Amino acid sequence: MSGEKKAVVYVRLKEGVLDPQGVTIHKALLQMGYKDFLSVRSGRFFELTVRADGDDIDRQIDEVCARLLANPVIESYSVEKS
Amino acid sequence: MSGEKKAVVYVRLKEGVLDPQGVTIHKALLQMGYKDFLSVRSGRFFELTVRADGDDIDRQIDEVCARLLANPVIESYSVEKS
Repeated sequence: MSGEKKAVVYVRLKEGVLDPQGVTIHKALLQMGYKDFLSVRSGRFFELTVRADGDDIDRQIDEVCARLLANPVIESYSVEKS
Repeated sequence: MSGEKKAVVYVRLKEGVLDPQGVTIHKALLQMGYKDFLSVRSGRFFELTVRADGDDIDRQIDEVCARLLANPVIESYSVEKS
């Protein structure tokens, strides 16, 4: 029987790359009166369900991060397996 | 002296809510030949830097989640404090 497993991929902008969404949210917070918020950085994550017995599945996950989920020029990613 | 602390807010679509971005990514993966991927759900996260001595800062964080970062009708959120 083939089981499933989950992996979560977190994609964030590399340090130094401008994050307009984060900046906009931060400005909105200040305008709403939340003065204790110093900065906001935004990111995306993807919850993947994969076949546990897939061929070299960890390598496949890493591959799709670089090929599809993240833009390696400006983004970094990390994978959390469970 | 006022310190800083970090919190990460994870926003995801509630179960049962259609995730077109996740579906699209999953289809793309299958077209690219990644047959071991069974499903993809997408989400967003926000790394917040806040004043550690802010007035009831944990309540403020919770408040901005519901008011600005997530749409409580279709999304749920969780906060990870560090």
